[in-house]
Amino acid sequence: MNILFVMYDQLRFDYLSCAGHPFLQTPNFDRVASQGVRFTNAYVQSPICGASRMSFYTGRYVSSHGAQWNGFPLRVGEMTLGDHLRDAGMACWLLGKTHMKADAKGMARLGLSPSSIIGARQADCGFDTWARDDGLWAQGPDGFYDAKRSPYNEYLKSKGYDGENPWADYANAGTAGGELASGWMFENADKPANIREEDSETPWLTTETLRFLEQAEGNWCAHVSYIKPHWPYIVPAPYHDMYGHNTIQRPVRHQTELDDPHPVLGAYHQTRVAQAFQQDEVRDKVIPAYMGLIKQCDDQLGRILDYLEQTDQMKHTMIVLTSDHGDYLGDHWLGEKDFFHEASVKIPLIIYDPRPEADATRGTTSDALVESIDIAATFVEAAGSDVPDHIIEGRSLTPWLHGAPPEDWREFVISEYDYSVTPRAEQLGVSPRDARMFMVFDGRWKLIHFEGGFRPMLFDLETDPDEFVDLGDSADHAEEVARMYDYLAQWGRRMSQRVTRSDADIQSMRGASMRRGVLPFLVDGSEVPPQFTEKYRGLTRQIHGPAASRGEERHDA
Amino acid sequence: MNILFVMYDQLRFDYLSCAGHPFLQTPNFDRVASQGVRFTNAYVQSPICGASRMSFYTGRYVSSHGAQWNGFPLRVGEMTLGDHLRDAGMACWLLGKTHMKADAKGMARLGLSPSSIIGARQADCGFDTWARDDGLWAQGPDGFYDAKRSPYNEYLKSKGYDGENPWADYANAGTAGGELASGWMFENADKPANIREEDSETPWLTTETLRFLEQAEGNWCAHVSYIKPHWPYIVPAPYHDMYGHNTIQRPVRHQTELDDPHPVLGAYHQTRVAQAFQQDEVRDKVIPAYMGLIKQCDDQLGRILDYLEQTDQMKHTMIVLTSDHGDYLGDHWLGEKDFFHEASVKIPLIIYDPRPEADATRGTTSDALVESIDIAATFVEAAGSDVPDHIIEGRSLTPWLHGAPPEDWREFVISEYDYSVTPRAEQLGVSPRDARMFMVFDGRWKLIHFEGGFRPMLFDLETDPDEFVDLGDSADHAEEVARMYDYLAQWGRRMSQRVTRSDADIQSMRGASMRRGVLPFLVDGSEVPPQFTEKYRGLTRQIHGPAASRGEERHDA
Repeated sequence: MNILFVMYDQLRFDYLSCAGHPFLQTPNFDRVASQGVRFTNAYVQSPICGASRMSFYTGRYVSSHGAQWNGFPLRVGEMTLGDHLRDAGMACWLLGKTHMKADAKGMARLGLSPSSIIGARQADCGFDTWARDDGLWAQGPDGFYDAKRSPYNEYLKSKGYDGENPWADYANAGTAGGELASGWMFENADKPANIREEDSETPWLTTETLRFLEQAEGNWCAHVSYIKPHWPYIVPAPYHDMYGHNTIQRPVRHQTELDDPHPVLGAYHQTRVAQAFQQDEVRDKVIPAYMGLIKQCDDQLGRILDYLEQTDQMKHTMIVLTSDHGDYLGDHWLGEKDFFHEASVKIPLIIYDPRPEADATRGTTSDALVESIDIAATFVEAAGSDVPDHIIEGRSLTPWLHGAPPEDWREFVISEYDYSVTPRAEQLGVSPRDARMFMVFDGRWKLIHFEGGFRPMLFDLETDPDEFVDLGDSADHAEEVARMYDYLAQWGRRMSQRVTRSDADIQSMRGASMRRGVLPFLVDGSEVPPQFTEKYRGLTRQIHGPAASRGEERHDA
Repeated sequence: MNILFVMYDQLRFDYLSCAGHPFLQTPNFDRVASQGVRFTNAYVQSPICGASRMSFYTGRYVSSHGAQWNGFPLRVGEMTLGDHLRDAGMACWLLGKTHMKADAKGMARLGLSPSSIIGARQADCGFDTWARDDGLWAQGPDGFYDAKRSPYNEYLKSKGYDGENPWADYANAGTAGGELASGWMFENADKPANIREEDSETPWLTTETLRFLEQAEGNWCAHVSYIKPHWPYIVPAPYHDMYGHNTIQRPVRHQTELDDPHPVLGAYHQTRVAQAFQQDEVRDKVIPAYMGLIKQCDDQLGRILDYLEQTDQMKHTMIVLTSDHGDYLGDHWLGEKDFFHEASVKIPLIIYDPRPEADATRGTTSDALVESIDIAATFVEAAGSDVPDHIIEGRSLTPWLHGAPPEDWREFVISEYDYSVTPRAEQLGVSPRDARMFMVFDGRWKLIHFEGGFRPMLFDLETDPDEFVDLGDSADHAEEVARMYDYLAQWGRRMSQRVTRSDADIQSMRGASMRRGVLPFLVDGSEVPPQFTEKYRGLTRQIHGPAASRGEERHDA
């Protein structure tokens, strides 16, 4: 079996027709959903690209792998999907974005050269790289945001898009009265990008994917990781004006959220992106572009599905469609992600499993509490290995795909967010270490704990599915708060770093010391079989060497 | 400043005359205590050699470094004292025991050869090795316990102690009627070891230490790590009969501890070593040998102190005397360590700081709540560096040494124990993952939490300093239990793995994306200074290249 692991960036869980979007038609996502399982309660380990992805790629919680924000390097030696799959005999390729930052200091400390195979994998998040492109080929007074070579920018240059940075000037800019209309500004989101549609980012990566598929041999996992529909929100024709204002849904927000909000949420209300998305004009410009970007993703997905069908590969290719987090788009008076409302922390997750055992669940949905770390476990199992559960903290979703849910499934999901790098930390007066928040969600109650001395927030998604009413300081809900804190404490005590010893190792260690001659705690030796003590019995040994006095002379004796 | 970091193995906190032992005179320990600070509330991160030492050497809690038991490898790349001190320009040498197991799999995965300098340091817990000897040069039907070369055994062979394993036949055996009387059996603990005293383990390592000191140049930290007074309990003359039965203290135990004990404690009451130490005959044999071993350690410490004084090195040598855990010796009906009573989890800790700032505290004691992870922080600071507190979780003890205690010192200490490898896990029916316990101690209350569904234990050391009365299921103490659980939960949420980003890094990252051209969330660009957006303004760019159709042809264009 091969695995096509497709990730979109900043794709909301509910912006697909199979997930109920009333206006956006995504027939190719739906096509996979109709043959697989769509998980309706899938959550990311952190609602921010880098941290979330490191959890997908390691199968570990953010506090376990430590790469808590964008640009926080994944520590050298931290095992990834690539390590686990290669151990299972499956190649693991990257096409597109990881948002991984290499631990250059750690690599230098261990003498690992980025040009060696081992070093390159360490630097590329464990993947072998077909094409790595993290997008955001941005350029400021201090230089380029990403100093790496961008294969996409190189592609654009080869296609005649001239200048130093065609990513910015063509793929992410429109035109307005002869002037460049940069995608960085929301006011330009309704312009068509100044690029041939087939040269824009999503088709480019799709073509790379088809090139990869045409030559792929043996067992492989291909991580096809699109940069879109992540901002800059701008899309080429014909996608730029496919969706009119009548297809924009009302924001999920309520005045009560602005009345005396929790201090941390209040700080988020004041961010530039939140204040932008609080304006109807911004939503009116951006949301049609966002939908256009998704529509383009769907069309491009169709090319891949067509290819797999035409080449008869659907029968041995697992397909996973997901995202690294959502996008508020003005819901809850917020933009971007970075907080724990459903629009941000819940993700689309559709898994097509070609095995006959999955026939019973095709076209169904599952409301199991799923975490993004489950993906790595699912893949390792699909590759034919036992999940190394002393390293990977997620659990395989195979039982859900095969219609045999485990009885002891998790009772809660965890998500984390480190805002230490953001201006919110300074604004709120919290130290980098305390600029962290944790979400615990049990399927009904969602608690948000903040370090730094703030009260928690609490939502009851059963009575308040829109998450408007914060019950965090409600005396009537103290019991629920305590129960959720017990979950968080239980999670805090989890064993996450015993990565060098599996349970099987532990079983085999039992009694090993004694077998190898360590015999402590014997009163007279009769407590153990004679073969353990025979080495330590017999005549007293005689000292044959010369006596020596103290000190250096001993070495001269 | 240099650092002499002396560790004894299994040395109880109260078996020193400066700590109040009524019969054992340890004038050399006392000599350091009279010039430094003796910490009376110092606790190990785990009452077991390997895990405890990995916490000393990394400055990190056991759950953070993951080497939770003896023989659990320290994961490759985990930073140690050696890494931190070398970064600060101080060499870091090992003489003696670490109980470190190399992460051979991890090293192979990263292509690290144990014969390279980097690989050797990874394999030797970050130290450069003068002499590594973990003791227990034991030998059973399956081969030697420790396959490494033992410099001590080689030394013995060079001195005429013949046979394959002189460690066992001479250093750790006495003689009884012409028969070898192995130190593995408690009944032989009263025999003199069949070895010249100056060739026994403690003098051997002391001589190695003096050899090291004679050639040492530049700044150094020397970890002089004795194997004694750890079992096998056998000591050469004249130490074997220095302490008569009238010097054996009554065991700290009470019948109430045996009445309906906590299930995990009950399982420990039944271990072979506990049952041995419940017998007076065993204590009568072992304790005098244990005291003799300590007396020998003290005499050997005197050789080192004399040398430092004679060579005028006391003025620039910090001296630390400590242990990796204690020894029950029959207290609480237990032997060995492995549980959280004071005899096991509290350690001696004496620090002599030569700096004039420490003059005010010479000869004093401190009852600050100290953890063994504080040692690494203290050393890094002594070496002139800031403590990298995103990696090292301990705190420098320098303020205590300099008579300026910080106002925000910790409120509790944590210790952990993983018993998954022991027969207790099977006996109690708990999985390897759940065979873990945690101690939280706030200076008065000591809570022990057990994974696996057991109730907690609680002791009040103010009213019950001997820890006889387990209040874990006392309804009257529910509030204290809850408060201690809050501490444990707070600790569980600690940030332990953000090891690639310091707080200073985080400060400098703020705003970096924008400076490098990433300009999200602009409505029209007026929100930022024009220099940030000028790259994205100007005339619309013209596409010069040829148009291409979809698919492969694009690559032929």
